[in-house]
Amino acid sequence: MAWNTNLRWRLPLACLLLQVAMVVLFGVFVRYDPDADASWWEEKKRRNISSDLENEFYYRYPSFQDVHVMVFVGFGFLMTFLQRYGFGALGFNFLLAAFGIQWALLMQGWFHHLDLQGRYILLGIENLINADFCVASVCVAFGAVLGKVSPIQLLIMTLFQVTLFTVNEYILLNILEVKDAGGSMTIHTFGAYFGLTVTYILYRHNLEQSKQRQSSVYHSDLFAMIGTLFLWMYWPSFNSAVSYHGDAQHRAAINTYCSLAASVLTSVALSSALHKKGKLDMVHIQNATLAGGVGVGTAAEMMLMPYGALIVGFFCGSISTLGFVFLTPFLESRLRIQDTCGIHNLHGIPGVLGGIVGAVTVAFASPDIYAQPGFSKDVQTSRTQGKFQVFGLLLSLAMALMGGIIVGLILRLPFWGQAADENCFEDEVYWEVPEENSAGHVTEDPTLKPPALLIPSGAPALSAVLVP
Amino acid sequence: MAWNTNLRWRLPLACLLLQVAMVVLFGVFVRYDPDADASWWEEKKRRNISSDLENEFYYRYPSFQDVHVMVFVGFGFLMTFLQRYGFGALGFNFLLAAFGIQWALLMQGWFHHLDLQGRYILLGIENLINADFCVASVCVAFGAVLGKVSPIQLLIMTLFQVTLFTVNEYILLNILEVKDAGGSMTIHTFGAYFGLTVTYILYRHNLEQSKQRQSSVYHSDLFAMIGTLFLWMYWPSFNSAVSYHGDAQHRAAINTYCSLAASVLTSVALSSALHKKGKLDMVHIQNATLAGGVGVGTAAEMMLMPYGALIVGFFCGSISTLGFVFLTPFLESRLRIQDTCGIHNLHGIPGVLGGIVGAVTVAFASPDIYAQPGFSKDVQTSRTQGKFQVFGLLLSLAMALMGGIIVGLILRLPFWGQAADENCFEDEVYWEVPEENSAGHVTEDPTLKPPALLIPSGAPALSAVLVP
Amino acid sequence: MAWNTNLRWRLPLACLLLQVAMVVLFGVFVRYDPDADASWWEEKKRRNISSDLENEFYYRYPSFQDVHVMVFVGFGFLMTFLQRYGFGALGFNFLLAAFGIQWALLMQGWFHHLDLQGRYILLGIENLINADFCVASVCVAFGAVLGKVSPIQLLIMTLFQVTLFTVNEYILLNILEVKDAGGSMTIHTFGAYFGLTVTYILYRHNLEQSKQRQSSVYHSDLFAMIGTLFLWMYWPSFNSAVSYHGDAQHRAAINTYCSLAASVLTSVALSSALHKKGKLDMVHIQNATLAGGVGVGTAAEMMLMPYGALIVGFFCGSISTLGFVFLTPFLESRLRIQDTCGIHNLHGIPGVLGGIVGAVTVAFASPDIYAQPGFSKDVQTSRTQGKFQVFGLLLSLAMALMGGIIVGLILRLPFWGQAADENCFEDEVYWEVPEENSAGHVTEDPTLKPPALLIPSGAPALSAVLVP
Repeated sequence: MAWNTNLRWRLPLACLLLQVAMVVLFGVFVRYDPDADASWWEEKKRRNISSDLENEFYYRYPSFQDVHVMVFVGFGFLMTFLQRYGFGALGFNFLLAAFGIQWALLMQGWFHHLDLQGRYILLGIENLINADFCVASVCVAFGAVLGKVSPIQLLIMTLFQVTLFTVNEYILLNILEVKDAGGSMTIHTFGAYFGLTVTYILYRHNLEQSKQRQSSVYHSDLFAMIGTLFLWMYWPSFNSAVSYHGDAQHRAAINTYCSLAASVLTSVALSSALHKKGKLDMVHIQNATLAGGVGVGTAAEMMLMPYGALIVGFFCGSISTLGFVFLTPFLESRLRIQDTCGIHNLHGIPGVLGGIVGAVTVAFASPDIYAQPGFSKDVQTSRTQGKFQVFGLLLSLAMALMGGIIVGLILRLPFWGQAADENCFEDEVYWEVPEENSAGHVTEDPTLKPPALLIPSGAPALSAVLVP
Repeated sequence: MAWNTNLRWRLPLACLLLQVAMVVLFGVFVRYDPDADASWWEEKKRRNISSDLENEFYYRYPSFQDVHVMVFVGFGFLMTFLQRYGFGALGFNFLLAAFGIQWALLMQGWFHHLDLQGRYILLGIENLINADFCVASVCVAFGAVLGKVSPIQLLIMTLFQVTLFTVNEYILLNILEVKDAGGSMTIHTFGAYFGLTVTYILYRHNLEQSKQRQSSVYHSDLFAMIGTLFLWMYWPSFNSAVSYHGDAQHRAAINTYCSLAASVLTSVALSSALHKKGKLDMVHIQNATLAGGVGVGTAAEMMLMPYGALIVGFFCGSISTLGFVFLTPFLESRLRIQDTCGIHNLHGIPGVLGGIVGAVTVAFASPDIYAQPGFSKDVQTSRTQGKFQVFGLLLSLAMALMGGIIVGLILRLPFWGQAADENCFEDEVYWEVPEENSAGHVTEDPTLKPPALLIPSGAPALSAVLVP
Repeated sequence: MAWNTNLRWRLPLACLLLQVAMVVLFGVFVRYDPDADASWWEEKKRRNISSDLENEFYYRYPSFQDVHVMVFVGFGFLMTFLQRYGFGALGFNFLLAAFGIQWALLMQGWFHHLDLQGRYILLGIENLINADFCVASVCVAFGAVLGKVSPIQLLIMTLFQVTLFTVNEYILLNILEVKDAGGSMTIHTFGAYFGLTVTYILYRHNLEQSKQRQSSVYHSDLFAMIGTLFLWMYWPSFNSAVSYHGDAQHRAAINTYCSLAASVLTSVALSSALHKKGKLDMVHIQNATLAGGVGVGTAAEMMLMPYGALIVGFFCGSISTLGFVFLTPFLESRLRIQDTCGIHNLHGIPGVLGGIVGAVTVAFASPDIYAQPGFSKDVQTSRTQGKFQVFGLLLSLAMALMGGIIVGLILRLPFWGQAADENCFEDEVYWEVPEENSAGHVTEDPTLKPPALLIPSGAPALSAVLVP
């Protein structure tokens, strides 16, 4: 299958069309929230506030910036572990996220943030956070197809996934009135199973021809750790960013901090125990250590208790590492699910666990725990709420599978510029890659010049495929 | 031209003299702002505040830290794209910024932050942000001369540029009463055209002898993306950091977020469209994607509307990419402007555009938009204000050109330790560079040892120049 | 000395046992602070607060996140400068910090944060910051033994050091009532001399056999700069994170900003002056530039004055650089102290200086400076307080030496999986390291394939040791 990977007209057209559409739709629909509008001084009067600090901006801006870093640096660098796909990992993540946040602002705006007349979407800091959240779920799915799809396919996937995400989120949060502040269900479970379904549909029979590039090198593993650490450090902000002011945000940060710490220790333990010489594997350190953050996504703002958070982290770190060792090879060989980054282990299973933890925490919450006046959940009994949480989880799974099939089939069409199986995980296909010699800089020694030694490894294979 | 690049006494003397001068001047002139002084409890009484949260610190500290990251990690890593100039990019940026912020605190303090008696500069969080802003304009200019100047030249350039920046800023903000919260004019336009003028004056005839090192390698492009992404992510903080409390800060962040997202898509579009095989170029992804942030610098805090921000980003990303492809080669070959990082495309043109966007936004602002009591611009009509914005832009350009010529001529003097044309873009000149073998670590294999293969490429050329 | 470095059962057991212990102890002892508890609405009533913003979360969360970045990215990447120990630097720092923060929450909780009944530790944002602080002192000590100890030894060291840290901190802050907000004494002095004592006890006679790996390569120096810059940029948050609300936090940030700027210039000056060709050394830029932050740790929140901060930074940067050039070789050859990262220069001497600066600043504080009502130090005269500060410094030193000897002797036991002298500073020992060819990616050329050329350098030596 030698598809044409020259995107010269297709990619520019796709980007420009989408961006023009965004401009028009924003022009028609999007205005500022009162907190961000020049009429804020009237809003202050209306709400009887004296201090500018009560502007939502000051409650949420620091968390927003941390979430922003997670989406662009966190996910981006986490995926640079491949030896020859760093440009694609960072660049395509950048592209899809930049488009995705715009589209998410619109989609989520229509569902959640219309003004009283239903005419305009009102934009404030919380919208920006939610748009980043929505895109995070696309970044998760990107992890499954990393290195195997073209940027055009990614834009299409983003367009559809953001749409579906918003519908699913609306049903969960507004119809089922489910709690999911850190998105174990809406972001991680949905994103992971969506991505896994897409990669299943896009199954590549001869991917082992790219196997040599589907691993890391020493330096690429260090770059990936930039992603891991920023995700790990800022996850408390992620899980607390849209919680209620005050104790809920505070508690969500503490629970996430605890859970993540625990998952580091169990990831290390399992990684060493499962290696025949007891050595640690960077894949586990880069990924499974984060499972604790996914696992407390739903319950972080609840009265989970610090020890509860530790227990969640304990199991998520362990199960995630076990998944990398046993499940990923099984999924690939038996179920034909080629999951480049192992998102099933980092987002899939821990996401489902997180949904269940949330349901259980809610179901067994004593009624007086959230007894403060005006707490929105005092009408439903805890048990009923627990059941709705489970419905929410199942619905997210169903939406992910269904959506993944449809989108996967669309992406299988042959004209999106995807690479051949033997050219996957290779930046040369879509990027102008600098030539380099062995020492990382151009050498004077003529015996080291291109011909035999220096042509990037993918090049001969590429020309062989593309020329005929 | 074989200058002496051994800085053993010149660089230490320059650093120590400047630092001693800073200590003395700070001792004579600098004290704490009431918000940072032990007398804060009296200040609270005076302003009739009950909460410590009303301390300016809590309004601006998170934005300050983001700006700080942009200056040191953002600009620093952005410039590590060169294959053999990573130490210089990070180290010299670190040095000039560390000196520049101190000098900027003094200069800006004398113009803007004297106490009522005119005796002391009062230091608070806003001063720190403004000092970082000022230095950002030096970092911009550094991009034009990257790899071609000595650290002593950079210290001299910083000394003068900070001074001129402050004068220009004072005239714009205090005399013309221009709006420029994100610095499209004062930071980007001024910084870019100052830097371009300096590099024009410092024209190097035989720079093509260093051409082989004036490009990236695979890993250096990944390092540069650290810079790009932190600049991109934190730019909303940059443009909102010194805006008025409340809606203005909030709005500036939203507008910048939107503009930047749009410029990513158009940069990608143009990058692919302008490559004969439709491949993307990392230079564009690293730079042009940021043009949206520059372009809304002036207007971000205004009622630009989200779609307005998207439009600005749309054009800035496009024009910036076009600039890299067509304008930079033209400037170099015809106008003898050797612009290492292409700052003309990232800061020059988008800065000018940003100034114009600001002028237009102001000129067409309906009078009731900023009608809240105490808004400082209610005396001038919108149109007049628009004209003043244009004057501000033109003045920034004039100051940059004039200042650049003077500083360029000073830097041309032969005793600042600059490298020869054939040794530009090479860390060996000013840095103790570790020897390394091809695999990135010392090898046992004797056939791979230094003599023929492993000497860093610059070394023979260097000794040839320096020894005689 | 051929120890068994296969940690297959020892490391997993250690991690799991410690983590289970954490879960149990958290279950018995740890609950939420009222500010993070669902009862916050009652707390608001009790304290007569109307705004959620008065929740401690909003005062300290941004600083907390910055400190978090310093511990995990700052210290982690700073130690990646070694050419073949990047996995160990990042991974082991991650592991010890993730365990350490949990243990510190408990230890510090028992000493400082019990509820009124003395039954439960109440967890809030300030506890998280203090736990990170405590772990920072372990990261400092890790720098001395980097590359020479096993992860099991690090976990043991963390267990003991956190315990001792908390005792020392309790005596200083609660019994001697010493001021040390940024931890010059409790964190840096204690951490550094503890680590130096441990490495002294663990002296390795034949470490020169690993000398070739105890240096950097070009790229590893760039990775290390990620650590340096994030430490440098966020240090103002570190020194202000637990200061009193309002002016103290504000002032601490300003002083640290100033001090750090000065230490960059003097580090550069000395680095160049001490090199025979005037070249800069990345070791100094990576480390000595940070000494200004250590040096104002104690005094940052005091009325040190900006010029006072500059003076502190001036001397700390200078002395630290001098230490790297003259003292480290002396300590190694004469005193048998093998200090991998030179922590004595970055944390040891500047920490002691910082303690003295704090004592002097306190002793000469005019009585009316901190005269606001309720200021905790109005009972002691300034001079007495100054003396107590000195006692605190001496006590920290004594605790570090004593503790270091005990812990060093424990770590000398032969069954913790430490590597032989000739395999130090090598990731192969504890990590599954990806194979790679010279160009950083797998090559097609059969003449370049593993056998002779491509085996990572450590491998032959390793097998020689491990096989017999």
